[in-house]
Amino acid sequence: MPDEFRAPVPDSERDLMTDYELGENRYGKSRIRLVTVRRGATQHDLRDLTVAVALEGDFDAVHTAGANAGVIATDTMKNTVYAFARDRLTGSPDAFGLELARHFVGYDVCSRAIVDISEQPWLRIPTESGPAPDAFSRAGHLTRVAHVEVDRAGSVRVEAGVDDLTLMKTTKSAFVGFDRDQYTTLPEAEDRLMATKLRATWAYAGDRVLGGDIDFDATWETARAALQNAFAAHFSPSVQASIWIMATAMMDAEPSIDRVRMVLPNLHHWLVDLSKFGLDNPGEVFVSTTEPHGLIDATVHRRRPG
Amino acid sequence: MPDEFRAPVPDSERDLMTDYELGENRYGKSRIRLVTVRRGATQHDLRDLTVAVALEGDFDAVHTAGANAGVIATDTMKNTVYAFARDRLTGSPDAFGLELARHFVGYDVCSRAIVDISEQPWLRIPTESGPAPDAFSRAGHLTRVAHVEVDRAGSVRVEAGVDDLTLMKTTKSAFVGFDRDQYTTLPEAEDRLMATKLRATWAYAGDRVLGGDIDFDATWETARAALQNAFAAHFSPSVQASIWIMATAMMDAEPSIDRVRMVLPNLHHWLVDLSKFGLDNPGEVFVSTTEPHGLIDATVHRRRPG
Amino acid sequence: MPDEFRAPVPDSERDLMTDYELGENRYGKSRIRLVTVRRGATQHDLRDLTVAVALEGDFDAVHTAGANAGVIATDTMKNTVYAFARDRLTGSPDAFGLELARHFVGYDVCSRAIVDISEQPWLRIPTESGPAPDAFSRAGHLTRVAHVEVDRAGSVRVEAGVDDLTLMKTTKSAFVGFDRDQYTTLPEAEDRLMATKLRATWAYAGDRVLGGDIDFDATWETARAALQNAFAAHFSPSVQASIWIMATAMMDAEPSIDRVRMVLPNLHHWLVDLSKFGLDNPGEVFVSTTEPHGLIDATVHRRRPG
Amino acid sequence: MPDEFRAPVPDSERDLMTDYELGENRYGKSRIRLVTVRRGATQHDLRDLTVAVALEGDFDAVHTAGANAGVIATDTMKNTVYAFARDRLTGSPDAFGLELARHFVGYDVCSRAIVDISEQPWLRIPTESGPAPDAFSRAGHLTRVAHVEVDRAGSVRVEAGVDDLTLMKTTKSAFVGFDRDQYTTLPEAEDRLMATKLRATWAYAGDRVLGGDIDFDATWETARAALQNAFAAHFSPSVQASIWIMATAMMDAEPSIDRVRMVLPNLHHWLVDLSKFGLDNPGEVFVSTTEPHGLIDATVHRRRPG
Repeated sequence: MPDEFRAPVPDSERDLMTDYELGENRYGKSRIRLVTVRRGATQHDLRDLTVAVALEGDFDAVHTAGANAGVIATDTMKNTVYAFARDRLTGSPDAFGLELARHFVGYDVCSRAIVDISEQPWLRIPTESGPAPDAFSRAGHLTRVAHVEVDRAGSVRVEAGVDDLTLMKTTKSAFVGFDRDQYTTLPEAEDRLMATKLRATWAYAGDRVLGGDIDFDATWETARAALQNAFAAHFSPSVQASIWIMATAMMDAEPSIDRVRMVLPNLHHWLVDLSKFGLDNPGEVFVSTTEPHGLIDATVHRRRPG
Repeated sequence: MPDEFRAPVPDSERDLMTDYELGENRYGKSRIRLVTVRRGATQHDLRDLTVAVALEGDFDAVHTAGANAGVIATDTMKNTVYAFARDRLTGSPDAFGLELARHFVGYDVCSRAIVDISEQPWLRIPTESGPAPDAFSRAGHLTRVAHVEVDRAGSVRVEAGVDDLTLMKTTKSAFVGFDRDQYTTLPEAEDRLMATKLRATWAYAGDRVLGGDIDFDATWETARAALQNAFAAHFSPSVQASIWIMATAMMDAEPSIDRVRMVLPNLHHWLVDLSKFGLDNPGEVFVSTTEPHGLIDATVHRRRPG
Repeated sequence: MPDEFRAPVPDSERDLMTDYELGENRYGKSRIRLVTVRRGATQHDLRDLTVAVALEGDFDAVHTAGANAGVIATDTMKNTVYAFARDRLTGSPDAFGLELARHFVGYDVCSRAIVDISEQPWLRIPTESGPAPDAFSRAGHLTRVAHVEVDRAGSVRVEAGVDDLTLMKTTKSAFVGFDRDQYTTLPEAEDRLMATKLRATWAYAGDRVLGGDIDFDATWETARAALQNAFAAHFSPSVQASIWIMATAMMDAEPSIDRVRMVLPNLHHWLVDLSKFGLDNPGEVFVSTTEPHGLIDATVHRRRPG
Repeated sequence: MPDEFRAPVPDSERDLMTDYELGENRYGKSRIRLVTVRRGATQHDLRDLTVAVALEGDFDAVHTAGANAGVIATDTMKNTVYAFARDRLTGSPDAFGLELARHFVGYDVCSRAIVDISEQPWLRIPTESGPAPDAFSRAGHLTRVAHVEVDRAGSVRVEAGVDDLTLMKTTKSAFVGFDRDQYTTLPEAEDRLMATKLRATWAYAGDRVLGGDIDFDATWETARAALQNAFAAHFSPSVQASIWIMATAMMDAEPSIDRVRMVLPNLHHWLVDLSKFGLDNPGEVFVSTTEPHGLIDATVHRRRPG
């Protein structure tokens, strides 16, 4: 390496540590793409996960002194995910996340391990002789997500959810009675389209997770079904109220869920004015838009003892 | 407008037309986002289309002389799509495309009208009391496409298809016997994963389209089902052979189809070497990748009289 | 609306409020796309912003009772952004965000207003007679961001930053001395490529913001230049250390900055093994990848009085 | 492999070849991500390319009989690109594409080789001591593209271009005098914003390419500069006319260019009606949109001998 390229000599007169300090930090590996095929006697089972691992801990010297002792390389994290997938990815992504997080928090320097998993569901292709044992079509209607945190003391946090679930109600949605001022032009709507591409995540009660008695696949399915049922059934006076209605329905349906967070864009569909062309438009022809959009973010939880 | 901003005086000494001429050209409106809700007595029907219109014709003076006489504004095309959607979008996207293309080719300057439509399928949300009459979830597994061309003389071309259909075979796929030279390192594979996100389009016989006897929704469904069935059933010696097998199965199933084109990325899934960690990996743990990818593009058509 | 479509009668026997309560929540409008052109005597000035507004406040009844009194429609927020853009977008996006946030927090129900702005920089097109007064090319090398929060009591928080800034060092980056265990296969690297697409945000000292003496365009430029200079100059023993070095350089350069957060993917470039083809590869030919990637997230702040 | 998974026995009574035949086809490798670093004595030089290779030839038996003899694996193509990058990527992407295409067309089965290259430009980071010798920032304002075809007989086709170049004119753009019918609502505009994200490609005269006397980097720069200059300088009566003006300016500037194709979306910017808020809006505040958009596609070529 020619001299021109060498690093500048650090300013030895000056210790940055007297002026600055390290705040919150974490590091890890993201977008670990993992597909597993379990080759059973009569059919194959497929799982398609994207895993991210992040660690928190005592990494001050790594940042401030360039000292890498104790650093687990993110490449090692990736290797661990693939190695663990061999034998320990036997059930839900949530359970796999717990296995991984408990492993990583075992490293000396690590105070907390966080594992995020997205699952792309696949369906067996229907054939004349029934569902194919070995051929699949990506479902595409949603992404299943799991978020797991384990800290050194052993406390755990598991959140599950759905992302990119795109839903539409063609009636039973209104928006009236809102505030009007000099910047308000939106008319009241007694009957409007409501469309969204939602992310809903829910936290399981920590003691239930520690007790090991949650069937994460079953609870996920119960929560998802309750969400969609409530979406279809309810009358929506606002997106905010829809979140309350869906979130409470999910917790009614699944006792292990402690709280639900929803992030709900309101993807506006504007009724086209066809009168210029001599046509009416009784709620039939809409322009679908993605920007700008309303964005509602709310958490609903079980009432805590006052 | 201050003088500085004015257009430069055109160079009257010089006639660009002596040196250059206009070649192929078309113009139109893309990404016209259209959702229709048909409000029946017992349920609503939803269609979600993205429409693009393009026109070809005698537009020389528009380009070379800035003369806009005869130009149909692309904004007018958009208005027309919404106006036609009011009463004439009663069946398939293909039929709607034909209505639109026949309208646009009626303009004097227009020699050919091309309409491309993408449809996002939605499903009724299942509820305890059956499929919801008025609440929908986006299917997400594929996009339906239709491409329609009508020329001034009345000849038509209709192509239908699927896009973004993501499929995987976990066995019955091999790749052996290929050429080897000094740049070849790929081992032969007797049993590999095959994954793709495919675009398949098929053309209907022109006389059948003109005869008006094609039920575009039914033929689309027949072709799509044949494609997926063949994908699941066949043994694949190469992606190229898979295209041949699927395309011929589609034409076997649906006589109105004249030819099929497939563009098939080969989304490689690499078996992870776990031996470094003391583990075997008998076809169970894979890295899923998107780049680089193989890309195979082939058309298969009915044999033409020699 | 036929009876089938009506909302289910709410279960009057049951008061959801006894079981559940609303947690954290906010709502607003996102992706408000705004371009302004200031038409000066000799040239036009262009700004291209994407604005998001979010409000926090007492919105319990909106969620739990469908009561919209006090709700500011997100459409009203959008209108306000465009109206304010007419006269009050005269300087930096940060200052515009403060104007907007102070307006929104003035609503009775609102306890905190949050405004996020992304700016796409454009450059005057160079011409033979100098920079064009009225024609621009999008710079594309980064997005400038501003995040403003104002609460009812008048306290403010302003964070500025860059996003999507893609940088690469072709030497002066190493990674050695990290932990090795049974899952570690990564060799030590004395000289590697380092590439990232970074997001860096920095907070201004609250009293300086309230004092009104920050020139947000000038401080942004100082911080950005210090970041890029430090990136180019430093020797990187790890991505973590690079963050420390760049962040402290930014605070050294700009006294109004209180802390810096960086989110730095490590976009791996793998040296290709060309020995199979009889070729060496002395750090010249690389595969560029985006997944998986390392992801480092750290905040550095001025030392606080112990 | 259990029997259930085996391929169905092919229908030996039936020869698909009597009914169907293979039409146009090609195959290859896409998204080959390649970064090269040339380590000179005083500075490093960086190139960042994405390469796609496709071959045409006699591949009938590959498709119809699953016979892979003669097939060059797409993995081999990828290896070849990296191996050639070691010594033969010494100049422009266009020249590298020619090297690759000439290599691939040398395979017996191959009748035509097509190489597409996208280049992401990077800039040296400016530092206090001048441009960094070894640290770069991605330019982001455009993608450079090259398309090369070589056929067995030795004829070549080289097209170069720019993609994703986003431009805006804040005046000197009008759209008047267009056709009006019952679907037309667009008012005439004497002075409007014109914005686009363009793709422009140009073909070099084949004899000039064969003669080997084109400096592809220099001609690319000449063409790009002429395009931007013309964009800035001209008065636009329509997007179509803008294409004519820019394309002819490019061919005026660079004699080796034979024809220019432009695909120009018209990214509409709508003046916001602020009168509802008691404000005027003299061309200052706009909503920026991406859909729907106009889309103009035209080729201009040198006049051919009549």
